[in-house]
Amino acid sequence: MTLIVSNEDVEQVLTMDIALAALEEMYVDLGNGQAVSGPRVDILSGSSSHGAAQYGLKAMGGVMPRHGVGAMRLNSDIITWPERDGNHRREKVPAANGRWVGLVLLFSAHTGEPLMIFPDGFIQRTRVAATNAIGAKYLAREDTRVVGLLGSGWQAEGQLEALCAVRPIELIRVYSPNPEHREAFAQRLSQKLSREVIAVATADEAVRQADLIAAATNTLEPVIRPEWIRPGVHLSVIKVQEVDAETIEESDRVLFHTRAMIKEQIYRPGAERNPIKQAEEGWWTAPDAPFWSRLADLSDVASGHATGRQRDDEATLFVNNVGLGLQFAAVGARVYEAVRDQRLGHEVPTEWFTETVHP
Amino acid sequence: MTLIVSNEDVEQVLTMDIALAALEEMYVDLGNGQAVSGPRVDILSGSSSHGAAQYGLKAMGGVMPRHGVGAMRLNSDIITWPERDGNHRREKVPAANGRWVGLVLLFSAHTGEPLMIFPDGFIQRTRVAATNAIGAKYLAREDTRVVGLLGSGWQAEGQLEALCAVRPIELIRVYSPNPEHREAFAQRLSQKLSREVIAVATADEAVRQADLIAAATNTLEPVIRPEWIRPGVHLSVIKVQEVDAETIEESDRVLFHTRAMIKEQIYRPGAERNPIKQAEEGWWTAPDAPFWSRLADLSDVASGHATGRQRDDEATLFVNNVGLGLQFAAVGARVYEAVRDQRLGHEVPTEWFTETVHP
Repeated sequence: MTLIVSNEDVEQVLTMDIALAALEEMYVDLGNGQAVSGPRVDILSGSSSHGAAQYGLKAMGGVMPRHGVGAMRLNSDIITWPERDGNHRREKVPAANGRWVGLVLLFSAHTGEPLMIFPDGFIQRTRVAATNAIGAKYLAREDTRVVGLLGSGWQAEGQLEALCAVRPIELIRVYSPNPEHREAFAQRLSQKLSREVIAVATADEAVRQADLIAAATNTLEPVIRPEWIRPGVHLSVIKVQEVDAETIEESDRVLFHTRAMIKEQIYRPGAERNPIKQAEEGWWTAPDAPFWSRLADLSDVASGHATGRQRDDEATLFVNNVGLGLQFAAVGARVYEAVRDQRLGHEVPTEWFTETVHP
Repeated sequence: MTLIVSNEDVEQVLTMDIALAALEEMYVDLGNGQAVSGPRVDILSGSSSHGAAQYGLKAMGGVMPRHGVGAMRLNSDIITWPERDGNHRREKVPAANGRWVGLVLLFSAHTGEPLMIFPDGFIQRTRVAATNAIGAKYLAREDTRVVGLLGSGWQAEGQLEALCAVRPIELIRVYSPNPEHREAFAQRLSQKLSREVIAVATADEAVRQADLIAAATNTLEPVIRPEWIRPGVHLSVIKVQEVDAETIEESDRVLFHTRAMIKEQIYRPGAERNPIKQAEEGWWTAPDAPFWSRLADLSDVASGHATGRQRDDEATLFVNNVGLGLQFAAVGARVYEAVRDQRLGHEVPTEWFTETVHP
């Protein structure tokens, strides 16, 4: 039987600790050449509906031999590029009857058969958050107590939860442009995490005295300012656009999630249809920048091929530049085990997804 | 509702004529920049089962705005590399309870939602065959009557059927190493196509006096010999390994399926695990060969940006070097329309594959 599982099922079984453990062993295997992650492929085209929207079909996958699984995550998105608060943002339209479409297919690497199909939503936030938290584990000071958080959305919530799982955080100052959003976020997360979470009116106020400055926005322009770099601070971003080249140059130690995929592969027909050039171009598409030679990947550190923070006064930076398809295999293996044990999800005959011919 | 459809359902609705029409309009759109095909991604790793097998997870997709669909084809394969008849062959093990795993997910480019999930087997053979037939339509002489066919497998059968749909073929001589296979093939195809199909004992015998020489093998070494080139002949191969650089150089006019994907993207961890180097390297990974500048793609000819056969005495060659993910969108759109009309397949709630969160 192949299991078809919902985000609610995933949420029921996937704790942050499970995700952190799954990803930590994944980075070890990846750094040791014992697991493999494929490139992310983005196919973009015009869409005949929803005004100036694009249609995006995305695939990213990986194979985790340790657990005998491979995973492929697919996204089928209607994308718009509205301007909000002076910044351009990439927004996905819930055009599937009010819903979005992101799917992970988990396969057995022993038999090839599909084990489970599940939506990518809950696991997506969890893996992004856990990745930055693992970055913080290697780079942030052990005594990191104060966090300055930029962003109060869905990803920001996950980031905070994950950071609190790896460092003894006591105080969080959160800034986002909309006062209602940041206030609601502060109230909710104070309760949820039993930490002091305070909404503040400016980014500068949020980052003042912070041991760790985390961005979790959907902006396409830099939000981390180089002047925030000071001895001992750790900076954490969930996308390349949140940081500028100067900040990378000025930081003492910088880890990327994976430099191999710094240039996303985007395929589109004919003329340029994307109105927002900076969504795709920036320091990360300039391979000659001087800082590249002193960067390492998270998997290099996890597998002992590079080092994390060495001194308390280093200023460090983690750039979660792009996701890895392999993450869905590593975390998916744990989710599959748990949902099967707990008999969650819908069972569909595996024969519906296999065939008797040999292509 | 999302439809889950079987190969039998696809076979019931997908005729060669429908596939040819779907692909011809696809090449026009592709050549005009109105459709987009993503790269093929192959992720290979060791597999702990089935002896020296590898596990391969593959994805290829495309978007066809004309029909408002995108498609992603996924393969999850247990792969071995046995030596047969002196040649190394890539073979997939039916490890999923005696079955193979190849899936196509067809999405709406208007709403993003998954419209249909179906196995890739029948459509795979049909699209490969139809592609070479469209190549023959642009390159083979109008009066092509005699075919020399190398190979008597599943792909060879599709090739012959498709070629007969585009040219007035009367006689086919088929060679493959196993006498029983080629005899059975000749008998079966004579009946099926109402043409004279004769099994012969050597490749030379098969190609003598042939107007069109078609290879449809799973060998990884060249089977087309340069000395077979003569005025007016058309050569057709279904993979780069079947032809050598000399044959490309000596042919008067050469079309590729798509040169952009001549170098497959293969990702694997750590050390080289593939025992068969020629599966991945050859003239097609040597970008400096002199012939590249005089080649064109099938979509260039279909869209009027390059020309097909110009004279009866030209020796022509079509290299179906790699499949395009876009083919699954183009043909899948037609299949979806037909299976929905005929109420075939299993209906599953689309909500099982969509979500209320926004990753």
